Amino acid sequence: MTFGIDDLPVRDELRGKSPYGAPQLDVPVRLNTNENPYPLPEPLVERITERVREAARDLNRYPDRDAVELRTQLAKYLTDTSGHAVGLANVWAANGSNEVIQQLLQTFGGPGRTAIGFEPSYSMHALIARGTGTGWISGPRNADFSIDVGTAAQAIASHRPDVVFITTPNNPTGNAVPPGTVLALYEAAQAAKPSMVVVDEAYIEFSHGDSLLPLLEGRPNLVISRTMSKAFGAAGLRLGYLAAHPAVVDAVQLVRLPYHLSAVTQATALAALEHTDTLLKYVEQLKAERDRLVSELRAIGFEVVESDANFVQFGVFEDSHTAWQKILDQGVLVRDNGIPGWLRVSAGTPRENDAFLDAVRELKKEQST
Amino acid sequence: MTFGIDDLPVRDELRGKSPYGAPQLDVPVRLNTNENPYPLPEPLVERITERVREAARDLNRYPDRDAVELRTQLAKYLTDTSGHAVGLANVWAANGSNEVIQQLLQTFGGPGRTAIGFEPSYSMHALIARGTGTGWISGPRNADFSIDVGTAAQAIASHRPDVVFITTPNNPTGNAVPPGTVLALYEAAQAAKPSMVVVDEAYIEFSHGDSLLPLLEGRPNLVISRTMSKAFGAAGLRLGYLAAHPAVVDAVQLVRLPYHLSAVTQATALAALEHTDTLLKYVEQLKAERDRLVSELRAIGFEVVESDANFVQFGVFEDSHTAWQKILDQGVLVRDNGIPGWLRVSAGTPRENDAFLDAVRELKKEQST
Repeated sequence: MTFGIDDLPVRDELRGKSPYGAPQLDVPVRLNTNENPYPLPEPLVERITERVREAARDLNRYPDRDAVELRTQLAKYLTDTSGHAVGLANVWAANGSNEVIQQLLQTFGGPGRTAIGFEPSYSMHALIARGTGTGWISGPRNADFSIDVGTAAQAIASHRPDVVFITTPNNPTGNAVPPGTVLALYEAAQAAKPSMVVVDEAYIEFSHGDSLLPLLEGRPNLVISRTMSKAFGAAGLRLGYLAAHPAVVDAVQLVRLPYHLSAVTQATALAALEHTDTLLKYVEQLKAERDRLVSELRAIGFEVVESDANFVQFGVFEDSHTAWQKILDQGVLVRDNGIPGWLRVSAGTPRENDAFLDAVRELKKEQST
Repeated sequence: MTFGIDDLPVRDELRGKSPYGAPQLDVPVRLNTNENPYPLPEPLVERITERVREAARDLNRYPDRDAVELRTQLAKYLTDTSGHAVGLANVWAANGSNEVIQQLLQTFGGPGRTAIGFEPSYSMHALIARGTGTGWISGPRNADFSIDVGTAAQAIASHRPDVVFITTPNNPTGNAVPPGTVLALYEAAQAAKPSMVVVDEAYIEFSHGDSLLPLLEGRPNLVISRTMSKAFGAAGLRLGYLAAHPAVVDAVQLVRLPYHLSAVTQATALAALEHTDTLLKYVEQLKAERDRLVSELRAIGFEVVESDANFVQFGVFEDSHTAWQKILDQGVLVRDNGIPGWLRVSAGTPRENDAFLDAVRELKKEQST
């Protein structure tokens, strides 16, 4: 027998586990990881190379540990798009919103503490909790994937978690959480402990509604987490960030690895932020395509969860894995998140979405005969 | 009073702490963070921009989660320079060796477990232990900063740590740990638990001796950690890596954040690896300058720890902080690592080293009068 993971002195809770990650298959149409289908425009590619060339000339030196220029520009972007003024002191950045969340859990969760999320939701919240030794509590959702304020507040009151995750728009279901619900859960969390409330707005730019950034006012235990992976079309860049009270930004610096953000990452992100207007135009196209997916899927006869994201959850299948495979057989890769009966499709280019719609029409025909 | 960190529900062990990091001061000669003083050669800067341009065109997609091409090239570099063959399956990469160490502690340390290091050593080992909920044990060193095998083995036997760190060449003292000592401590660690032994070789390219890579043969609980920050002159890139048994590489993937290594980081590192031969010539220059610093410091009358790194620890001062300040007053920034009586200087360019030597000659004169 080969010497494997379980022959090493790994932590007990890691035994028998597999690494997180969607299958990366080589298929004509990949609509499985909520990537933005539009490559960066060529002028931005050139601006990135200019900025990286400059950074490379100083690459023998450590990067700006505090990423001051980048955080300043992220703050400007948030202020411009939300109308709520935030500054450098309110913003922190890391290698993807996953690292932001890891730093938050290392600061406010960890051994002897717990975090709650309302599931199904972004599964990395639970996995990063495990990775940081934070106990995980699976909070409730309604059958239609909305959050019932009373039930959720009661779960917070009885479990008294140290960290509360609210993902809006939610992944993988696509629906947004009403601001009133977020406010009520924030109050419940303060009454119970007080605990930190992390609102994961990875997909907020695609929402019909507004960012919850203005709620930061007067709520120092609230954190809004964001990413450049989706709206900025830069999943390959790994740039996540948060906005919060300056004390939160100070606190995560106690656990962040020094110089965690490379000079090339900072340079590339700054270049992308210079092209915000162009990139947000792609977001508008994707929102229109997302709305088209919702209505066409319904017209075909699927159930669809209302979507405020760049993806759509649809069903209901007797066997979602078989449905996933049949769609894949037609050259279209969607995501099976393990939610019985449902699949998730990312909004692609119009042509990609047409290919997907053709595939599921075919599937529907098969099911009906 | 301002609302601050301690008003937030942060973990108790973070209260009253400050973030890690050397002062980043704007001084003519910065010899405080063991950076490589040689900027990347212009052809490499151009190669980086070419590779990043290519990566930027696909930036809307997630990066290769497994960094296959990069790990393959890192394995080739290790094989070529050590004579010990390692392949893709033996190598893992992350955002700086700090993240490599964090992943190792999340896998093999964590809540209810402990790690030991022989101090003074690289202080991030203890800090990352704290950040991952791993108990930290400060192991012993001799007054001359060498490790006494018997005493160290006894510490391992009595504490039974889950992870043992051995930094060679050691930071901040500069001395290498003899291979026999590493072997003896590996045996002691296996007898005690068994536990993982992490050999931190961040500075190995500057050593008079060889890498301990060949020791991996038949020792699945041994890990060699490396970085491109020093020998490759790429502190700004944040690229650390490890070599170990394939089971270790599989195990850290249970805790790594998915897509942790950005496409631009992978592209930049690959470009740098293409220029290995050129970059290793700078290493030879730095080794000669390091040896010159050792002999000149001794000639001036300082005590100096034998150095196998790109820095030198020197003393002994009655008050090392005052000495640090006086050197700084002459425009040269060195490092006060908090080891009473000692300071650390990084090997810079010949001109920078001359400026440093002039400053400490001045200091010595002052002390003698």
